[in-house]
Amino acid sequence: MGGGMARVLASRDGVKITGAISRTTMVGEDLGEGLGLKPLGVTVSNDAGATLAEARPDLTVIATSSFISDVAEQIYAAVDFGSNVISIAEEMAYPAASSPEVAGEMDRRAKERGVSILGTGINPGFILDALIIALTGACTEVKSIRAERVNDLSPFGPTVMRTQGVGTTPEEFEAGLEDGTVVGHVGFNESMHLIASALGWHLDRVEQTRTPIVAGETREGQSITVPAGRVAGCHHSARGYVGGEEVITLEHPQQVNPGAARVETGDYIEISGTPGLSLAIQPEIPGGVGTIALAVNMVAPLVAASPGLKTMADLPLPRALLGNVREMTDQLKDVR
Amino acid sequence: MGGGMARVLASRDGVKITGAISRTTMVGEDLGEGLGLKPLGVTVSNDAGATLAEARPDLTVIATSSFISDVAEQIYAAVDFGSNVISIAEEMAYPAASSPEVAGEMDRRAKERGVSILGTGINPGFILDALIIALTGACTEVKSIRAERVNDLSPFGPTVMRTQGVGTTPEEFEAGLEDGTVVGHVGFNESMHLIASALGWHLDRVEQTRTPIVAGETREGQSITVPAGRVAGCHHSARGYVGGEEVITLEHPQQVNPGAARVETGDYIEISGTPGLSLAIQPEIPGGVGTIALAVNMVAPLVAASPGLKTMADLPLPRALLGNVREMTDQLKDVR
Repeated sequence: MGGGMARVLASRDGVKITGAISRTTMVGEDLGEGLGLKPLGVTVSNDAGATLAEARPDLTVIATSSFISDVAEQIYAAVDFGSNVISIAEEMAYPAASSPEVAGEMDRRAKERGVSILGTGINPGFILDALIIALTGACTEVKSIRAERVNDLSPFGPTVMRTQGVGTTPEEFEAGLEDGTVVGHVGFNESMHLIASALGWHLDRVEQTRTPIVAGETREGQSITVPAGRVAGCHHSARGYVGGEEVITLEHPQQVNPGAARVETGDYIEISGTPGLSLAIQPEIPGGVGTIALAVNMVAPLVAASPGLKTMADLPLPRALLGNVREMTDQLKDVR
Repeated sequence: MGGGMARVLASRDGVKITGAISRTTMVGEDLGEGLGLKPLGVTVSNDAGATLAEARPDLTVIATSSFISDVAEQIYAAVDFGSNVISIAEEMAYPAASSPEVAGEMDRRAKERGVSILGTGINPGFILDALIIALTGACTEVKSIRAERVNDLSPFGPTVMRTQGVGTTPEEFEAGLEDGTVVGHVGFNESMHLIASALGWHLDRVEQTRTPIVAGETREGQSITVPAGRVAGCHHSARGYVGGEEVITLEHPQQVNPGAARVETGDYIEISGTPGLSLAIQPEIPGGVGTIALAVNMVAPLVAASPGLKTMADLPLPRALLGNVREMTDQLKDVR
């Protein structure tokens, strides 16, 4: 993901890449050459502190882990050098959901250094939260929200297969849920609280369920072949309650080759309210390039924002940055 | 439209209606009683200056006309009393498109009085611009955009029928285009420039075409019956060019009872780019309640904003204001 973002950023007017940090991949290589582009004059380093000290970036994009416990120190390192930060860690989409104290500390440290911090991505960060929020803007009343993201895990590698329990028996899947090796989707808690806080709802509780999607036929993926009877994916769903009523339902069945079972992929949002709304994006917005796009495109709105920890609901509309990014940032600063 | 907005605002926590201005309807009546609600203690007046002086609103919603030439003085009157303004005049969605000098003057006067001004609505303001902009946030590249809003004019009254040429012969329709009585959709120029400015595109030109939709069968509307051979509506389309290439195409066929011709209504957005995206909202978001919702829901983001003339691309995501509007405004101020 970091490489994908670097490739897009390198192609943008008004952006200069001043440093690149990696634990192992491409270390010592020129970033551009490592990405198959022309040389960028930036050597990939595994020394984060030295790179930040020399690069002095206006903004740092971090693509390392899903969890705040892993990325908080990486974020602080950039913030302490006066850099704005965009993270694609799922828990960063609404840090207060899992880690209210860390969220407070991030906000405090960002304000102290005059920079801002944002978690974004396709999901959480867009499909199952920001896009839903924006749609409710056309409603005078919202009774309940139901959304579903049906995607295809076929292109992904072994790590994703393991965390979704792909290839296991149904019994192994259940055991994996118990011992934490099968995770499903990370981000429902964040999407729920992002939606609720934006709409002025106070959630009583969020419930989550993960059930195995058992293949009825052979499912071919790029890194795995799932025989019939084995687990092809994880159907993860979440329900958010206000005053005892289920008001937000989010469904995310992720599986290898859903087409084999004649399941069509797509992103779907249904709002019960005034007016009722039914939206479909078919096929689904692809997760990899979608997350890269959001991270890269939120650069201008985030750098233009006031200091502090932000969410997608705090900033101006996301947009593709097709012009000079520096000029677009200045324009957004003018109207902030 | 003003009555619809007042009805929704009267139902919101943290909102107090302090005045109501109307040219003729309900003048002298209690606003609540006039709307069929319980009395609100606000007498509808046709004296705008006296009402503003007494009501001293934080925000004024104006629903009077489509054109800046009609609403500019009404907006200034509110701004001069220190009120923020939301207008549903179509030209106000991006005032610089039709009236760059007035836009500059509005921005200057708003900043002078420390208030902000926004034009919004379902279209322009949301479907064919803000929603498109937000979707491009999930794209790393955008080659072109095609969007279409297919709606049903059946519920509308004689004014809309006249401006869309409904009931005319094809020859009368063409004559109406010539003499300005058939207008079609007001807002394409605004949507085009709103999209382009948000994405960093510089439009060479915008072309518009209006063609009659001739009924092949009888079309029944609430205020009119269109016999076969007469005009059932206006297909208005617009094309925006960058570097000689058509990059934005917006289509808006508006007609009475499209179902009679087996035309399904809906809002559709197609983005050619990386990734390509295809979105459908079926049926279309209804125009009346959708515009009321956006005007009422942008209250919190607008009052929280810095002074000046704003567009939907400058402000945080629209959202339904389901909590206390004053508290939601303060929250948005904190993260601005």
